[in-house]
Amino acid sequence: MACKETKTAVVLLSGGLDSSTALAWAIKDQGWQCHALAFDYGQRHRVELLSAKKIAHSLCATSYHELAVDLRSIGGSALTDHIDVPRDAHASKDIPVTYVPARNMIFLSLAMALAETLAATQLVIGANVVDYSGYPDCRPDFLASFASTANLGTKWGREGQGISVVAPLITMKKSEIISLGLKLGVDYSLTHSCYSPAMDGTACGHCDSCYYRRQGFQTLNQADPSQGG
Amino acid sequence: MACKETKTAVVLLSGGLDSSTALAWAIKDQGWQCHALAFDYGQRHRVELLSAKKIAHSLCATSYHELAVDLRSIGGSALTDHIDVPRDAHASKDIPVTYVPARNMIFLSLAMALAETLAATQLVIGANVVDYSGYPDCRPDFLASFASTANLGTKWGREGQGISVVAPLITMKKSEIISLGLKLGVDYSLTHSCYSPAMDGTACGHCDSCYYRRQGFQTLNQADPSQGG
Repeated sequence: MACKETKTAVVLLSGGLDSSTALAWAIKDQGWQCHALAFDYGQRHRVELLSAKKIAHSLCATSYHELAVDLRSIGGSALTDHIDVPRDAHASKDIPVTYVPARNMIFLSLAMALAETLAATQLVIGANVVDYSGYPDCRPDFLASFASTANLGTKWGREGQGISVVAPLITMKKSEIISLGLKLGVDYSLTHSCYSPAMDGTACGHCDSCYYRRQGFQTLNQADPSQGG
Repeated sequence: MACKETKTAVVLLSGGLDSSTALAWAIKDQGWQCHALAFDYGQRHRVELLSAKKIAHSLCATSYHELAVDLRSIGGSALTDHIDVPRDAHASKDIPVTYVPARNMIFLSLAMALAETLAATQLVIGANVVDYSGYPDCRPDFLASFASTANLGTKWGREGQGISVVAPLITMKKSEIISLGLKLGVDYSLTHSCYSPAMDGTACGHCDSCYYRRQGFQTLNQADPSQGG
């Protein structure tokens, strides 16, 4: 077996299906030392943070960080503001109301700051253009541009090794992501995807995120091990 | 007098001399509708937030926003971590220990999110390369790259008017900044610059920020109206 170079990564982890799989890929497939980074940003599905912590632990991440950033006071999204999460509306290619203004740019910027203090060379994000083509901050041209900007605007980029932004799932279908995750031993019962869960954390089954998750498991003829999701 | 187009701007405001002057420039010189944005990021000179609020009010900003983002848990800087702020060490051209990893990228990303919800077309930042040449995130190439990235990664950039990043003080000396601010009626007694103030908010007089401020006022043969600063 070829010996892979051990790199250090900061991995954005929401506790959902995609980011959990991306973390598993970075740790188990690439053999990187991974620091997981989750955000308490005022999301209405804040229950996902419990999932993030459990997933980071179950995949043996090197460390788990939870960072508070108040996006609720900015608003402009159904995930943080008084806007209803749509039910059963998955056909549109418009930017959905669950889009949070500049979210991935904010999260990646904070991840870059952490990467600089940890001397990490990889920023891993579970962004995906197939199911989430409407989100401008999930597209490859944005991610490439972000990496250039981050390397220009930091000490680590100017004087150190700098970072690469890695999006291993970017062109995968949901079923392919799940298939990869199952091969890498991701325990999907720990993950949370729903945008609009009940008070007890049960998935609604009707939002975009529930829809794509269900489709993915169905395509593989697999049961979704998460409660109600 | 030529009639200027009224634009809407989000202005990063720390409560210091530069950002206060930048806000005055945007409101009084450009005639823009300006939303001031300050950050509670765990800075040890948190007293600057009081100044930010007073300055925004005194310059008649359209609104004042204070946003919490926890950079202390990331660390890596004398401004947020257990690292001493250097006294009387102003000659070095290295990146100083008061550099906060990725700070301007984080702040500009959050400003971009607010700009998107307010349909603002200008992000104004008091960045300056003369006194702060060591800070990678105060350089023009970073600011230009940030604007491109922000426009790729947001709905406002892809489908709306998008934003320009404007740094009106970028090549000014401190004395020129103060001269401009005095002309525009900035009340510098309200501003706070010191990185390492006493418990009562009194400036230390020895950090980089105090040094450049004092030099600026001395060059103009003006008294600095702020207490001790």
